[in-house]
Amino acid sequence: MQTFTLYNPTKLTVGRGVNSKIGTEIARRGFGKVLLIAGGGSIKKNGVYDTVISSLTEAGVSAVEKWGVRPNPVLSLVRDAITLARDENVDAILAVGGGSVVDTAKAVAAGLHSTDIWASFESYKLITKALPLFVVLTLSATGSEMNGHSVVTNEHEKKKWSISGPALYPVVSLIDPSVQIGLPWRQTVNGVIDAMSHVMEFYFMGSNEEPSLALDEMLLTTLIATGDHLMATPDDYDARSHLAYCATLALNGISGVALSGGDWASHGLEHGISALYPEVAHAEGLAVTFPAWIDYHRKNGTKPELLARFARKVWGKETIEEAIDAMRAKYTSWGAPTRLSDLGVSEADIPKLSDNVAMMGTIGQLKKLDRTAIEVVYRLAL
Amino acid sequence: MQTFTLYNPTKLTVGRGVNSKIGTEIARRGFGKVLLIAGGGSIKKNGVYDTVISSLTEAGVSAVEKWGVRPNPVLSLVRDAITLARDENVDAILAVGGGSVVDTAKAVAAGLHSTDIWASFESYKLITKALPLFVVLTLSATGSEMNGHSVVTNEHEKKKWSISGPALYPVVSLIDPSVQIGLPWRQTVNGVIDAMSHVMEFYFMGSNEEPSLALDEMLLTTLIATGDHLMATPDDYDARSHLAYCATLALNGISGVALSGGDWASHGLEHGISALYPEVAHAEGLAVTFPAWIDYHRKNGTKPELLARFARKVWGKETIEEAIDAMRAKYTSWGAPTRLSDLGVSEADIPKLSDNVAMMGTIGQLKKLDRTAIEVVYRLAL
Repeated sequence: MQTFTLYNPTKLTVGRGVNSKIGTEIARRGFGKVLLIAGGGSIKKNGVYDTVISSLTEAGVSAVEKWGVRPNPVLSLVRDAITLARDENVDAILAVGGGSVVDTAKAVAAGLHSTDIWASFESYKLITKALPLFVVLTLSATGSEMNGHSVVTNEHEKKKWSISGPALYPVVSLIDPSVQIGLPWRQTVNGVIDAMSHVMEFYFMGSNEEPSLALDEMLLTTLIATGDHLMATPDDYDARSHLAYCATLALNGISGVALSGGDWASHGLEHGISALYPEVAHAEGLAVTFPAWIDYHRKNGTKPELLARFARKVWGKETIEEAIDAMRAKYTSWGAPTRLSDLGVSEADIPKLSDNVAMMGTIGQLKKLDRTAIEVVYRLAL
Repeated sequence: MQTFTLYNPTKLTVGRGVNSKIGTEIARRGFGKVLLIAGGGSIKKNGVYDTVISSLTEAGVSAVEKWGVRPNPVLSLVRDAITLARDENVDAILAVGGGSVVDTAKAVAAGLHSTDIWASFESYKLITKALPLFVVLTLSATGSEMNGHSVVTNEHEKKKWSISGPALYPVVSLIDPSVQIGLPWRQTVNGVIDAMSHVMEFYFMGSNEEPSLALDEMLLTTLIATGDHLMATPDDYDARSHLAYCATLALNGISGVALSGGDWASHGLEHGISALYPEVAHAEGLAVTFPAWIDYHRKNGTKPELLARFARKVWGKETIEEAIDAMRAKYTSWGAPTRLSDLGVSEADIPKLSDNVAMMGTIGQLKKLDRTAIEVVYRLAL
C-alpha cells in the first residue's frame, strides 16, 4: 500500500429521532446563533424543520434562515448567505437538507473567513479557516456530511468547481434515515448511484491495496442490493439506514485509503454536462459518464486484471464487457439514464461539452484525459 | 440498523518512513516535552528509537524516557511513569512500541489528571481528561493506536481491567509497516489473531446491520489471507501494511458500527487466563477461548442463521461445526494454540479461572454468561 492518512474529525450519528439532538450538539460547544441554510421547503413538509427549530429553541440557540438552495448549488446564493451571516453576526452554520445544502453551507462557512470565496475555488488552496458547521442531513447521496469538500457552480462563468480543506469537515452530522422514507424514487436512486460513483472513482486506482479494494467491493455490492431492496420496499427503515451509512462511507475517506486520491474523470465529465444543462441531476450525469469511462479504459487495455476483478466481484460477470452491460442494465432497471440521449444531450453538443471540461486542463488520474480523449469518452456515452 | 455514532479524532498515517514525522506532529501542536514510554529495547535494535529521537531533537521536543513495559502491562509501571511525568512536568505522552506500550501510555496520560488511576478502572467512568498522547506503533495487533481504550493488569489483585473515554484517543498515530518485517513469527501471527478476535467480538452481535457484517467479513477474510501470506513471505511490505491497516480497523470503531458495543465474553475468558498465567500472550489466549465460545453458542442454538453465514462467508464452509474446525485448523497451521492444554492450563485450573472471571459479574452481551456458563465454555476449550 502507498502511504496514507486516515483522519476524519466529524462526529456522525445515524438513527431514528437523532435530529432532535442538534440544539444540544451546538450549544454544548458554546455556539449561540446559527445561520440555518435550507433548500426549497421539503423540510417543512417532512417535519424536519419543526424538529430542528424546537431543538435549537430548547437549547437556547437562535437561528437566522437562508432558503432556496437547489441541486447544483450556485455561487450567487453562497454570496448572499455570506452577507447575511456577516450582517447577523452568527457564530456557526447549520445545514438542514441534502448534499447541495451542505456544500452551500461549507462555502458560506469558508467565505466568512475570506474576502472573495470564488478566489478559493480558482486557487485550489486548502481551506484551513471556516466557521464551525453542523449538519442535519435529509437526503443521503453526496457524502458531504462527513468530508471536507464542497462543489459549487459559478453560474455566470458556467464553472462547477470545488474547494477542500480540514476546516470544511462538519463538527457534527446527524442523519435520521426514517426522514428519507417518503422521498421520491428518483432522488433515492440518485443517492445510490452517486454513492456507487464515489466508490468507483477510488476503486479503479487500486493495485495491491487489498483492504481498500475489498472494502470498496463490499460497499458497491451492498449499495446495489440496497437499491434493489428500496425499489421493492421504499419504506424499509433498515434499507434506508444501509443507504445512509454506505453513502457516507463512500466519500468520508475510508473508501479511498491508499488509492491515490481517486480518478475523478467521470465526475469531471459529469460536471461538464450539468454546468451546461443545470436541470441534469448530478447522479444522472454520473450514471451516463461512468459506464462510458470504464468502457474507454476497457478499449484502451488499462489495468485488465483490475477490470476483470471488478466484473467478477461486483457484478458476478466473467468479462468487463458483460459487467458494463450489467451496470447499464441495473441502472436502467432502476429507471436511471445510461446514455447522453436519455439526458437530452445530442451528439452535436459533444464538442461544446468537451471544450467546457477541457477548460480545467486534463481530467483523471488513472490516465490523464485531454480534450481529444474527453470527446472520445462522451461519444462512448451516445 | 440501531442508532450509532461514528467518531474517531485520531490522525493515523501509515507508510514507509513516516516515523520521522513524529517530532513535527508533536511540535506543531505546541508541545515541547514528552514522556517517552517504551518496552524492553527492541526499538533500539530495529532503528525506531534512533529515528524517533532524531525527529524529536530536530523539532525541538525534549524527552524523558520510561522503559520496561511488557506484554500484559502492569499497574505498578503505570504508577511509576505517572510519578516520573509529574516530576518532570511533561506536556504530552509519546508511546513507542506495541499495544502494551500504548495501553500503558493511555493509563499514564489519564493518571496525570486523576488522584488514583486504578479507581478509574474500578469505576467504569468515561475518561474525559488526559494528557495528549502520540504513538509510534511498532507491532500491529491490539488496535490501541486508534481508539479510546486501555487494558492494564493490577498484578497485586490479579485483575486485568480496562478504561475507556474520548480523552484516550491518540492525537496522532504513525505506523511504518516496514519496521515489522523483522518480527518473530509468533508476534506476527498473534497480531493477526488479535485483530480477527476484535472483529468477531462485534460480528456475532449482528442481525440486519448488513454494511457492518459485510465489512467485518471483508476484514476477517483479508486478515486470514494476510496471515497465510506473511507465513510464506514474512518480508512482504504490502502484506505487512495490509495487516497494519486491518488491525487498526478491527478496533477503531468502524468494525463495530451498530453492533451493540460487541460481546467481549471471549476477551473476558482470555483475561481470566492471562491474569493467572501472565506468560500467556493475549492473542494466544484468544485463539483458545474464541473457538470455544462460538462452539458454546452453536450448542445452545444461538443465532443459527448468523453462525451459518459466518461459516459460509468467512470460512467457505456449509456448517458452523466445519467452520469451527477450519478456524482451529487455520490457527494450528499458523503455529498458534487452540486448546487450554496448549497454554499449559489443565482441567484442574478451570474452577479457579472461572472464579476469577466471574468476579466481574457476568460476561458477554449476546448472552450473559454467569459463573456456570463460563466454566462450560472453558471446558469446551479443553
